[in-house]
Amino acid sequence: MEIQENYKTLLKEYHNYNVLNQIDGILYWDFETKMPSEGVAQRSEQSALLATLMHEQLTKPKIGELLHAIKSDPAFDSFNDVEKRNVILIEREYNRKTKIPKDLVEKLAKQSKVTSSAWKKAKNQANYALFQPEFTKLLELVKERVKYLNPDKEPFDVLLDEYEPGMSSAQLTTLFNEVKNGIFPIIQRCMSSLRQPDLSLIEGKERECSLQIQKKLADELAKMVYYDLDKGRIDESEHPFTVGYYDDVRITTHYYENDFSSSFFSVLHEAGHGIYEQYLPKEYIYQPVGDSVSSGLHESQSRFIENLLGRSPEFWEYYLPCLKELTGDIFADVELESFIRAINKVEPSKIRIEADEVTYSLHVIIRFEIERDLLTGKISPNDLPTIWNQKYKEYLGVDIENDAEGVLQDIHWSEYDGFGIFPGYVLGNIYNAQMLAKLSKDIPDYKGSIKKGEFKPIIDWLIENVHQHANLYDPPELVKKITGETINPKYFIKYLEEKYSKIYGF
Amino acid sequence: MEIQENYKTLLKEYHNYNVLNQIDGILYWDFETKMPSEGVAQRSEQSALLATLMHEQLTKPKIGELLHAIKSDPAFDSFNDVEKRNVILIEREYNRKTKIPKDLVEKLAKQSKVTSSAWKKAKNQANYALFQPEFTKLLELVKERVKYLNPDKEPFDVLLDEYEPGMSSAQLTTLFNEVKNGIFPIIQRCMSSLRQPDLSLIEGKERECSLQIQKKLADELAKMVYYDLDKGRIDESEHPFTVGYYDDVRITTHYYENDFSSSFFSVLHEAGHGIYEQYLPKEYIYQPVGDSVSSGLHESQSRFIENLLGRSPEFWEYYLPCLKELTGDIFADVELESFIRAINKVEPSKIRIEADEVTYSLHVIIRFEIERDLLTGKISPNDLPTIWNQKYKEYLGVDIENDAEGVLQDIHWSEYDGFGIFPGYVLGNIYNAQMLAKLSKDIPDYKGSIKKGEFKPIIDWLIENVHQHANLYDPPELVKKITGETINPKYFIKYLEEKYSKIYGF
Repeated sequence: MEIQENYKTLLKEYHNYNVLNQIDGILYWDFETKMPSEGVAQRSEQSALLATLMHEQLTKPKIGELLHAIKSDPAFDSFNDVEKRNVILIEREYNRKTKIPKDLVEKLAKQSKVTSSAWKKAKNQANYALFQPEFTKLLELVKERVKYLNPDKEPFDVLLDEYEPGMSSAQLTTLFNEVKNGIFPIIQRCMSSLRQPDLSLIEGKERECSLQIQKKLADELAKMVYYDLDKGRIDESEHPFTVGYYDDVRITTHYYENDFSSSFFSVLHEAGHGIYEQYLPKEYIYQPVGDSVSSGLHESQSRFIENLLGRSPEFWEYYLPCLKELTGDIFADVELESFIRAINKVEPSKIRIEADEVTYSLHVIIRFEIERDLLTGKISPNDLPTIWNQKYKEYLGVDIENDAEGVLQDIHWSEYDGFGIFPGYVLGNIYNAQMLAKLSKDIPDYKGSIKKGEFKPIIDWLIENVHQHANLYDPPELVKKITGETINPKYFIKYLEEKYSKIYGF
Repeated sequence: MEIQENYKTLLKEYHNYNVLNQIDGILYWDFETKMPSEGVAQRSEQSALLATLMHEQLTKPKIGELLHAIKSDPAFDSFNDVEKRNVILIEREYNRKTKIPKDLVEKLAKQSKVTSSAWKKAKNQANYALFQPEFTKLLELVKERVKYLNPDKEPFDVLLDEYEPGMSSAQLTTLFNEVKNGIFPIIQRCMSSLRQPDLSLIEGKERECSLQIQKKLADELAKMVYYDLDKGRIDESEHPFTVGYYDDVRITTHYYENDFSSSFFSVLHEAGHGIYEQYLPKEYIYQPVGDSVSSGLHESQSRFIENLLGRSPEFWEYYLPCLKELTGDIFADVELESFIRAINKVEPSKIRIEADEVTYSLHVIIRFEIERDLLTGKISPNDLPTIWNQKYKEYLGVDIENDAEGVLQDIHWSEYDGFGIFPGYVLGNIYNAQMLAKLSKDIPDYKGSIKKGEFKPIIDWLIENVHQHANLYDPPELVKKITGETINPKYFIKYLEEKYSKIYGF
C-alpha cells in the first residue's frame, strides 16, 4: 500500500534527523567535558553546520508532501496509535520549523550571542542597564517568532507547546498559585522551628572527601539506581547535565572536596534523567514516539531519584552506614536524624540553582510569572529588575541587593530558546509527587524496600509506568495514564508537609 | 567579478565538507576512547549518516558547475597559486568521488564489513581458507573501483593518487629496491654483532612504571616537542592514533605497566603527527590547501619525532637523567650506552606493528609488492599465503608458521580503503631522513641542541619547512622544496648505517 510506503519513507527521514540530533549531543558533551580550550571556534562551526543540517532535514518539502499524502489518505484512519502518533509528532515539528522564516532563525541566533555577551558584562558589573538594550531586542525577536508560530494564541502558550505540549499558561497560573500557597506556610514553619539543621555535619574542612572517594560514590550511586554504565558514563563539567539517547546516555557532575553532597545529589539527579533515556522502549528507537515526552516529565524523573528517593529519611536509614564505611572516619560522629535535617535544609535564598527542595519552586514560579507578562507586554524590560526584586521580597522574603544576584543571576533570558522552558521544573515536582502517591498504592511497602536498599521495585515501577510510554502521549494524558488523575499539585504540597513536618518537628 | 564569486561559493561548499570531516574525527576519537560499550549500534548509524552527508556534500552538481565555470573563465589564469591549488584539489576530490557509482560505494562498504568479520574468524582459527572467498570478492570490487577511477592507468597508481599524489608504483618499486638492498646488510651486521641489546634494561617486572608516572611522562614529552595541550589532549586507546585539525588535534596512547617504552615512543610518534596538524598555516583553515599533504608526509613527521629525535643517542644523553629522576629508582642502575642499544634493538620479526626502525620498512615493502601484483592479477588470492611466507623468509629470514602470524596478522586487506595506503610508511622514513640531512646543514649543531634538551630550533625548522607548506604542493614537489633534491632513499640508508654502526659497533 502506498500509504505504508510513504510512512516508511517519512520515518526514514525522521531517522536521519534523529541521528543528527544524537551527533549534536555527543559534540555538546565533548564541548563541556573534554574539548581542548582552543577548540571553541572550530566547534562553533561544527555546531552551526549541524544546526543547519537538522533544520534542513526536517523542513524538506518532501516531508510536507509525505505528511500531506499520508493524512489525506483514507487508510490513515486505520493506522494504529503508534503510527498515528509518529505522524502527528513529525507534523508538529515540521509545522513549527517551517513557519519561521530563515532570516528570523539567523537573527535569533545572532541576537542570542550578542545578548549573552551583554549579559556577561552586565553581570560582572551588576548593572542591568548594560543588559537591557540587547535583551529588549532579543525579546522583540522572540515575540516575532511566537507570532509566526501562532498569532492567535496567548504567547506563552505557543512556547509551552514546544516544551510541555497540552499545557496552557492559564492552567499553569492556577497550578502554580496552589503550589505557592501551599509552600508559603511550610517555609514559615521550617524557619520558625527550633530544630534547625547543622550544615557542619555535611560540609566544611572537617568533612572533606577526596575526589577519589567521591568518584567511587558516584559510580556506586549510579549503579544503585540502575543507571547502566555500559550505556553511559560519568564525567565532570562546570554544571551537571545529561545528554544522550537509549544506549549512549552520559551524565556529568561537579565535585567539591569540602561538600560531597553537591556531587552526591547531582549524580542522583542526572542518573534520574539518565535512566529515563536508557529505558525508553527499544522498539521505538529513532522514531518520534521513542523520545522522552517533555521537560516537565524529564524533570519529574530526575527529581524523583534525587529528592523523593535520595533525600528521603528512609534512604539515609540505609545509606548513612554505607557512607560512613566508604569515607573512613569523616562522618563517624554523624547521627541519622541530624544528618537528614542537614541534607534537607530549608531556607529562602536568592539564587535558584542553590535553592532547596521546598523553596526551589518559588524561584521558578517567579520566572514564569514575569516571562508570561513580558511576552504579552504587560511587563516591559524597563520594569524587569523592580518586579524581580519585588517578587523575591514577596515570595521568598529576601532583599535583592544588586542585579547580579537578582535578575542577572543566570544566562537563561540571554538566549532565544531560554523562554518557555522553566515551568517544567515545577511541573516535575508536581508530577513526581503524584507518581509517588500512585506508587505507594501499587507497592505499599516501598518505604521498607528503600530502608533495605532495595530500589529495584521502584525503578521498575518508573520504567513500566513512565519510561516505557516514551512519547506516546502528551503530558496531561500521560499523567492521567500513570496516576489515574489529572494533574494535581496537592500531592506535592502534601508530600512536602509530611516530610518537612517530621524533619523540622512541626 | 563572477569568477571570484564562484570561487568564494566553491570554498564555502568545501568548508562544509571540511567541517563534516572534523565532526567525523571527533566521533572516531570518542568511539575509540570514551564511548560506552553498548553505544556501538547507534554510533554506526551516526558514522554512516555522516559518510553519506560528506559524499553528498562533495558530489553536489553545484560543485561540478562551479568548477567548470571557474576553470573555463579566462580570468582563471590570473588566479594566484593558492587559489589555483584550491581549485585543483577540489576538482581532484570531486572527480574521484563522482566517478564511482553509488551502488558500488555501497557494495564496497558492505563487502568490507563481511570481509572484516571473515578475517576475524579466520585469524582466530589461523586459517586463510576462511578468509579467501570474502577477500576475493572484496578485491574484485576494489579492482572495479580502480577501473571507474582510471581504466588506463596501472591499478596501484590509481590508489596512490589518493594517498601519495605524484608517485607511481614504478617509482616506488625502484625506491623500495634501493631501501631493501640498503637494509639487508645492516640487519646482518646488527645480528652478528657481539654487542647485543639487553631488553631487561627497559621492560619487565623490575622496570614497572605506574600509570600515574607514565601519564606524567606523556604530558612532559608532548610539551617538550611543542605539542600544544591547549589545542589537544592525550587519552588512552587500544592502538595509538592522532585525529584532528588545527586547534583541536587529539592524540592517544596505550600504557603497559611493564614496558614504559611502548607509550613513551607512541606519544612521541603521535605528537609528531599532532604538531603537523597544529602548526598548519592559520590562514588556510577550512580550505583544501590547509590540509596535510599525504600519508607519507604525515608519517615523516611522526617518525621524525619518534625515531630521529626520540631514539637518538643525543636525546637520551639529555633525557636519561630526567627519566631516572621522574621514575624514582626504577632505572637507577641503567647506563646510557646499553640503554640506547636496548631502545634501538634490531631483530627481524613476523609482526609489522612490533617491528623496529630498521626492519619495519621491509614489512611494508612486502605488502606493497604483493598488493601491486594482486591488483594487476599477477598474484591471485589463492597464492597469497605462499607468497607472503616466501617473502618473509627471503626478506626477513623468518618462518611464518601459520596464517594468523602471517597474512592474517592485521585487518587491513579486509577493508576496501586499506589498499594503497601502506607505501606511505616507508616513504615517511625516506622523506624524514632526507629532511634531517637538510636540517643538519641549516642547523649544523642540531645534535648539540638535542643534548641540551633544546628542541625548539628543530621543531621550528619542521614548522617552517614542512608544516607551513600545508597542502600547497604534491609530495614530490614538496620534498624538492624542502630539501632541494628529488626523493632520494640514500639518506635513509646512510642514516641507518651511521646510527646502527655506532650502536652495534660495526
